[in-house]
Amino acid sequence: MGYDKTDELTINTIRVLAADATAHANSGHPGAPMGMAPVAHVLFNKFMRFNPKNTKWLNRDRFVLSNGHGCMLQYALLHLYGYALSIDDLKAFRSVDSITPGHPEAHDTPGIEVTTGPLGQGICNAVGLAMAQAHTGAVFNKPGFELINNYTYCFLGDGCLMEGVSSEACSLAGHLQLGNLIAIWDDNHISIDGDTNQAFTEDVVKRYESYGWQVITVADGDNDLAGIEAAIKEAQSVTNKPSIIKLNTTIGFGSKQQGTHSVHGSALKADDIKQLKQKWGFNPEESFAVAQEVYDRCNQASSAGAAAEEEWNKLFASYGEKYKSEHDDLIRRQKGELPEGWEKSLPVYTPKDDAVASRKLSEIVLQKIHNVIPELYGGSADLTGSNLTRWKDAVDFQPPATGLGDYTGRYVRYGVREHGMGAILNGLAAYGTILPYGGTFLNFVSYAAGAVRLSALSQVRTLWVATHDSIGLGEDGPTHQPIETLAHFRALPNCMVWRPADGNETSAAYYVALTSKHTPSIMALSRQNLPQLENSTIERAIKGGYVCHEVEGAQVTLVSTGSEVCICIDAVKELEKQGIKARVVSIPCFEVFDAQPQEYRLSVLPDGIPSMSVEVMSTMGWERYTHEQFGLNRFGASGAYKDVYKKFEFTPEGVAKRAVATIDFWKDVPNIRSPLNRAFKQII
Amino acid sequence: MGYDKTDELTINTIRVLAADATAHANSGHPGAPMGMAPVAHVLFNKFMRFNPKNTKWLNRDRFVLSNGHGCMLQYALLHLYGYALSIDDLKAFRSVDSITPGHPEAHDTPGIEVTTGPLGQGICNAVGLAMAQAHTGAVFNKPGFELINNYTYCFLGDGCLMEGVSSEACSLAGHLQLGNLIAIWDDNHISIDGDTNQAFTEDVVKRYESYGWQVITVADGDNDLAGIEAAIKEAQSVTNKPSIIKLNTTIGFGSKQQGTHSVHGSALKADDIKQLKQKWGFNPEESFAVAQEVYDRCNQASSAGAAAEEEWNKLFASYGEKYKSEHDDLIRRQKGELPEGWEKSLPVYTPKDDAVASRKLSEIVLQKIHNVIPELYGGSADLTGSNLTRWKDAVDFQPPATGLGDYTGRYVRYGVREHGMGAILNGLAAYGTILPYGGTFLNFVSYAAGAVRLSALSQVRTLWVATHDSIGLGEDGPTHQPIETLAHFRALPNCMVWRPADGNETSAAYYVALTSKHTPSIMALSRQNLPQLENSTIERAIKGGYVCHEVEGAQVTLVSTGSEVCICIDAVKELEKQGIKARVVSIPCFEVFDAQPQEYRLSVLPDGIPSMSVEVMSTMGWERYTHEQFGLNRFGASGAYKDVYKKFEFTPEGVAKRAVATIDFWKDVPNIRSPLNRAFKQII
Repeated sequence: MGYDKTDELTINTIRVLAADATAHANSGHPGAPMGMAPVAHVLFNKFMRFNPKNTKWLNRDRFVLSNGHGCMLQYALLHLYGYALSIDDLKAFRSVDSITPGHPEAHDTPGIEVTTGPLGQGICNAVGLAMAQAHTGAVFNKPGFELINNYTYCFLGDGCLMEGVSSEACSLAGHLQLGNLIAIWDDNHISIDGDTNQAFTEDVVKRYESYGWQVITVADGDNDLAGIEAAIKEAQSVTNKPSIIKLNTTIGFGSKQQGTHSVHGSALKADDIKQLKQKWGFNPEESFAVAQEVYDRCNQASSAGAAAEEEWNKLFASYGEKYKSEHDDLIRRQKGELPEGWEKSLPVYTPKDDAVASRKLSEIVLQKIHNVIPELYGGSADLTGSNLTRWKDAVDFQPPATGLGDYTGRYVRYGVREHGMGAILNGLAAYGTILPYGGTFLNFVSYAAGAVRLSALSQVRTLWVATHDSIGLGEDGPTHQPIETLAHFRALPNCMVWRPADGNETSAAYYVALTSKHTPSIMALSRQNLPQLENSTIERAIKGGYVCHEVEGAQVTLVSTGSEVCICIDAVKELEKQGIKARVVSIPCFEVFDAQPQEYRLSVLPDGIPSMSVEVMSTMGWERYTHEQFGLNRFGASGAYKDVYKKFEFTPEGVAKRAVATIDFWKDVPNIRSPLNRAFKQII
Repeated sequence: MGYDKTDELTINTIRVLAADATAHANSGHPGAPMGMAPVAHVLFNKFMRFNPKNTKWLNRDRFVLSNGHGCMLQYALLHLYGYALSIDDLKAFRSVDSITPGHPEAHDTPGIEVTTGPLGQGICNAVGLAMAQAHTGAVFNKPGFELINNYTYCFLGDGCLMEGVSSEACSLAGHLQLGNLIAIWDDNHISIDGDTNQAFTEDVVKRYESYGWQVITVADGDNDLAGIEAAIKEAQSVTNKPSIIKLNTTIGFGSKQQGTHSVHGSALKADDIKQLKQKWGFNPEESFAVAQEVYDRCNQASSAGAAAEEEWNKLFASYGEKYKSEHDDLIRRQKGELPEGWEKSLPVYTPKDDAVASRKLSEIVLQKIHNVIPELYGGSADLTGSNLTRWKDAVDFQPPATGLGDYTGRYVRYGVREHGMGAILNGLAAYGTILPYGGTFLNFVSYAAGAVRLSALSQVRTLWVATHDSIGLGEDGPTHQPIETLAHFRALPNCMVWRPADGNETSAAYYVALTSKHTPSIMALSRQNLPQLENSTIERAIKGGYVCHEVEGAQVTLVSTGSEVCICIDAVKELEKQGIKARVVSIPCFEVFDAQPQEYRLSVLPDGIPSMSVEVMSTMGWERYTHEQFGLNRFGASGAYKDVYKKFEFTPEGVAKRAVATIDFWKDVPNIRSPLNRAFKQII
């Protein structure tokens, strides 16, 4: 447990780098890095197992900076420990196109596990990472082969603790008894508004004990390196509880303003940095300076990590001799590739098949594919029986001690915790061996908007089984009926929103969602039954949009999704009675349709004919595809779903009436242009 | 404390009504009403002070059903106690256009204080109601005139406790020492997925103690009426802590399936209802039957409430003699009307005034109007110095014991709790004497999406001061830069999204937001400075959209909002160099612009000329107003804001280039139609 001058120098180097980089950028948060440098040093130097040369080594310890605004701490560590992050990258902190953005982004920067910054998310990601570790270990470890036993460490601040999303995930983590999860709370009593006593006077220790966590306190996190080390060891020693270490620190340690909120979110002044450097024996005229002994000290840990990986690789190779299929499966999973031929298990339908709710169609998919995709790992936020997210005979992911399942289980009881679930999904996906999905009502995916946004930004493959997707849920009424939700998530970059109209479209949605390695998906699924369409096929639907009813001499194109496509098909018959010919297009996914070649898109939504969208929610966004829009720009109503549809005229007659109005309105316009024609390219 | 046969009959009547109504609707949740009927009876009969004939009596006790799916409990109570809710209304439970929708909706049903159902929201609304009570009491009560001392009671279930939003608000409520808040937890161990031991094994008592709440346990909530009464009394006796009563109940009490999740969310079977009625002495052939003695028993409480109101009215009249201005102010506030002439305090700008960030312009508004609008009651989710939401010398709303403020204070330190804040705002607004606003970054309003949705649905006047509204926030990067956020909230019905371009537009945004009694507003405000525009006036901007640069013979209309309007103005000069004439339109608020007469709208966005929108975020929704869209359908970048704008070509040159492309693309189209022309009316 001895710590020497080099340790001290390393800690102060981290602090000075944070001060230099924020000063250089004239932006950023020096306070947290300076306060947490000691614990970061102890953790990375004495505990963390990682190989900077292979950031994807499966059994590496995971590190999550939930207080992501303190990212200069992480960037400094990545640099010192030999990740592909140079001093020039530190100098480029917070500048355009750097790999050192204002908050850590997983897809940009080597060594960053998850994208953090929005408070509360990181600790939930850490819960997900720890669940993934527990599950992967339970599935793959064998006697003599403890392949997967890594720890997940997470730093978090007061802000993370105040956010409800962390309460959700931490309560669940306690229930799940995740012994390999170790959180370290930067208890510095300062948030942006000043002293936390203004708003945050709860007893955090007691709260975490109430969740079933082990709580350990380090009284002097600024100086007591041995105490920090002992605390982490103690955390490791308890294997059936997650641990949180309450670390009392001084924000901006070393600054003349230390311990105040003025060091939280702005660069230190030049004279302040100068006195820091003088005090700690740095040359005040130099910036971004790192002594060789510091690199050497850090390199010891990195080398040890590289050696550990080498050992592990040997272990894994001999594991492969004994357990070839598991070995190969684990390699395959890490590539994000699905088992060959899995797609043959996707159900296919003909128009003769029964009308089925798309939530049920989704259940059928899960039932058929869960055996061929062993990394599929589901759950629901307490709506299992409504979301239909649990295949028959699924084992629950539960601590064995509960008697309710075990860690090999692939179904998670998330409780009524949508946001926590969403953030956990991001952690699960980031681990590398799991393909996670979570269920709730579409309306309550909005509760998790903060997490879904980070799924999209960090390019992870997560799936939302979002049932009860419209006023079609009926009696539950406006509080539960999405209106704005699809527009919201369709506007989110790199997020697929699927709203399948029948069985083949549901299979197509799953096909694309599961094979898109870097994009999350939201599957909007109906409560009510939907007939199998004449012209839907998986092949057509995977293009995101296709013609599902064609007729020569059509006067209008009806464009729809999900439960309204069949109403449009019926509207065609209604229009026929009036001598009007209409074609019908289904666009189950904007994002995917937009990615098709323009020629194909124009064959679906051609020039020369007016078009009208039909969807029982906000029309926002439909103007991109259609000339006219029939939707619901108000809240819904509580009642039997057919009554609700009728109230708002989402009936074949109501659609036909508006189709006629559309034809009439556009009849004098020569050379009608498809809205798909644009003057210039969008920035995507 | 005596309870007799009539009490028992009243309790069983509530249960039977819940069973009958859900059976009649063949939909709904009988379990919670049947389990909570005893506590509801004790509370309404012995404690709640209310007058069903005047549901808006200011000092009434507030009741919130946070587990809103149990609304048949509330509807039964409203009926029995003489609110304007008939037996026929109960029979119409969950049918279209009834006042008894699937979850309680405040604007529809007399006696419903807040709209609940989305779990976790109601308890936060209750915190807001209790804060409003504490504040209003502190401001208006005088020696001998304790005008405002009502209690806020809230029922909540396990689901509400699992949701993080409730953790946020309850932690704050403990900090704020809200003694008049009494929550009653229906501890029935059942959620939709089954036994709560599957996901929710935390120690709730300990957690609420950690928040600083008083926790009281009632072991037998099914039968022990005296125990329930004693618990509520005990809760009332502690005046510096909120209380939560842990009430052990049996879900679906009386049903053959009692205590299981099968009674949670579906109607009881006919034979089950029959045995209930037989067991409890009801005629099994009758439905919706209420004995006169039950009405009489309930009427005693209602009459006592009416008498209490009468007493209060006398007290208030004599208060008026002594404190006329306070008296009149309180009356005015309850009408939702602002003090006469308040709008004269709104700042007005000329083009000669300095360029100022709109977050700063917002601060100036708050600084100018806080004295003339005493009900203005603000706060921020720990971003006070960034959101600029606190006027100089504001007093914080804090328990006096903290020494940091007092309950007359009008500034709340919400902590990093956006969702909790949003739900609290709804409660504050529902109280009737307060005009609340809350600040955070625009990106993090998304964390509160669940609460914002309910602001809109329940038609309350809440304001979000949502600063750092785009990539213009610069260095914090993509994790903090909104892309989808405006599209999301613009798609939400009855929600105003304002994005003012300068000082006059900011004043206009506040004018409309503050005078719209039944609509929430989100003010999207810039971090960076914005010049004062030539043609902006408050009068023009309150129309939601107006021409801010006109030129004869214009070839293109540039349509923009907020920080991009001035770029468009500069682009006009850029285009002039190329001999191209362009006009510029500012649309600070879609919702308000849409409400203008079509003739006016077409004068702003006329036929015969192509138009292009310019906004540094998702283009979704802009197709409704413009032919072409220049926006950002990808995530942003971390860097100095000017560099980020440049990266994506949001510069006068970048705009001009695309304006030229727009003109070129539309040059061969005769009679260009404004997108405002539509074939048929939208459902709004």
